[in-house]
Amino acid sequence: MRLPTLPSIDLTQRTAFQAHLDDLTKPLGALGGLERLGLRLALIAGTCRPQDPPAFLLTFAGDHGITRHGVSAYPAEVTPQMVANLAAGGAASSVLCRLNRITHRVVDVGVAAPCDFPGVIQRNVVRGTADPLQGPAMIRAEAEACLQAGLDEVASLPEHAFALLAVGEMGIGNSAVAALLCCALGGLSPEAAVGPGTGVQGEALAQKVRVVAQVLAHHAPDAKDPLGVLAAIGGAEFGAMAGAMLGAASRGWAVVVDGYIAGAAALVALRLDPKLEDFLVWSHRSAEPGASRLMERLGAEPVLDLGLRLGEGSGAALAVPILRAACAVMREMATFSGAGVSTALEPEASNADAS
Amino acid sequence: MRLPTLPSIDLTQRTAFQAHLDDLTKPLGALGGLERLGLRLALIAGTCRPQDPPAFLLTFAGDHGITRHGVSAYPAEVTPQMVANLAAGGAASSVLCRLNRITHRVVDVGVAAPCDFPGVIQRNVVRGTADPLQGPAMIRAEAEACLQAGLDEVASLPEHAFALLAVGEMGIGNSAVAALLCCALGGLSPEAAVGPGTGVQGEALAQKVRVVAQVLAHHAPDAKDPLGVLAAIGGAEFGAMAGAMLGAASRGWAVVVDGYIAGAAALVALRLDPKLEDFLVWSHRSAEPGASRLMERLGAEPVLDLGLRLGEGSGAALAVPILRAACAVMREMATFSGAGVSTALEPEASNADAS
Repeated sequence: MRLPTLPSIDLTQRTAFQAHLDDLTKPLGALGGLERLGLRLALIAGTCRPQDPPAFLLTFAGDHGITRHGVSAYPAEVTPQMVANLAAGGAASSVLCRLNRITHRVVDVGVAAPCDFPGVIQRNVVRGTADPLQGPAMIRAEAEACLQAGLDEVASLPEHAFALLAVGEMGIGNSAVAALLCCALGGLSPEAAVGPGTGVQGEALAQKVRVVAQVLAHHAPDAKDPLGVLAAIGGAEFGAMAGAMLGAASRGWAVVVDGYIAGAAALVALRLDPKLEDFLVWSHRSAEPGASRLMERLGAEPVLDLGLRLGEGSGAALAVPILRAACAVMREMATFSGAGVSTALEPEASNADAS
Repeated sequence: MRLPTLPSIDLTQRTAFQAHLDDLTKPLGALGGLERLGLRLALIAGTCRPQDPPAFLLTFAGDHGITRHGVSAYPAEVTPQMVANLAAGGAASSVLCRLNRITHRVVDVGVAAPCDFPGVIQRNVVRGTADPLQGPAMIRAEAEACLQAGLDEVASLPEHAFALLAVGEMGIGNSAVAALLCCALGGLSPEAAVGPGTGVQGEALAQKVRVVAQVLAHHAPDAKDPLGVLAAIGGAEFGAMAGAMLGAASRGWAVVVDGYIAGAAALVALRLDPKLEDFLVWSHRSAEPGASRLMERLGAEPVLDLGLRLGEGSGAALAVPILRAACAVMREMATFSGAGVSTALEPEASNADAS
């Protein structure tokens, strides 16, 4: 399949944009992580005064054949029920999107049961993936179709020169699939990648680690073929999320990664096109231990650290106001060099203490 | 002086509100710190479905006699210039208030030079405090008048049953005064309480520690008399912030503490009335090392951890959307017990893994 070409971010602007940040009426660096975030978003937007960005959250849903091996205590029926709840506006991410001016779309890309609920976007590629201990979770053409579903969903969004695309998911069993992808494409061990999810512990957690190790042994995935890995060990919503991320970046939008599962999808997308890295914002540090390990490998710094472990894109939706704040500071703060603000605000000495 | 009576929060509601949280359509505890925040705000609001709270930021400004001992490399003229910038809408906190639907008021309570700029609220008590190495920074009546200025400012705000009051400051030299208060009222040592502020290091930092130690030795402040401590070692804006916090809590509002300096004011207010504790939300972990030590002493957990060290109330304004999100989740999420959402969403086993 043909993936979109990602634009190159003009990193030569970094010096000028940093000079703009340092010209804002505050001590140098006093806004800490918000300044780093503002600089990143300004580079994506291509201006040191980025506009207030429109924001979208895509929540992709799928089911997983791996669940038959006891990696999740929830039945597969929960996936469509939560899809209905998401589309009806009752889920956490629905609430956060309403509050934070985020357009929310809920997309069935791989749910086992039909999701013909009002408001659900129909892009189903597979009615649940196959058992990856019996064969590939998907055939290669299905994996490609999942990527395409994500690309198509982004293509259907309104055109904006700069916007935020947040990406999340719903799918019983998908924290095990995220662990598989982090092992196959991120070099984590099953022990490092598998976590308690929403509460698996003891023997159930040991079983989850064993199943992940067995799937990896069964497929011996080749990290140089990320699409083949996606097909072999699955995850329809992972493919769609990766496609959506690449599609958003090809538009010059910032991509807001949710938690561990969206992070694993980002890993797939990064392996498909490393240029994606410049467009990613990691919204929060999930409580799932693998998430911190993945971010460490990728040199990613999360915006929030609130111990979230829900998924759906809820953490990404929660972080959107912070991203908008980073843009607003870049865009609207007075400058020392501007009219009406005295340069006496600048420190007299380099070891100045403003307060 | 007569301080307002703080209402008692009905902590017997905690069990019922936690049950409501656990009835929301998500795995138990999956929203981590956002759930703890939502529970706290619900208890303050007195309902498990708190309304979307109006928000206010009060930025109090003052100057400090201690600056003549080289604790800050900025001249005192910067305080009124930044006050003008804050009132004109060009400061970081001004920008964040506009973005986040926060009513911003900038109040002169202790600036050395007149601040007759458009939009600045005039509540000046002292034209800068006196040198605390020569005598008290303020007389007791002035310290009381500062507290009263904060109380009066809150009394002038529109009436709401539940709202967020964020509190911040501007004042050259006030990180040294915050350190003094944390030593006198919080049991920190000068070495633990004094930090680089916006960049003091080496000999300048050692001098800042020495001055703080000298002031403490000079006054031997009595922690049992917080108003006396405030008068002796000063800080007009600290008194006003403490008064505003008590005033907001007396209305049943949540108090959003900004960084180290507002945190020191919260310490003063807590020593005046320990019941304030139930109304406080600590918005962020300031980069100033004393801030983490103060929060540790008080058992406080910050919402954001972005390495901010600006003041003005900027961190509090940045965190307001997260507080509103915590309320929205409590208020608007669907419940398992409610109509239309199946209890099949609940895990089948206690060690369930929802995803």
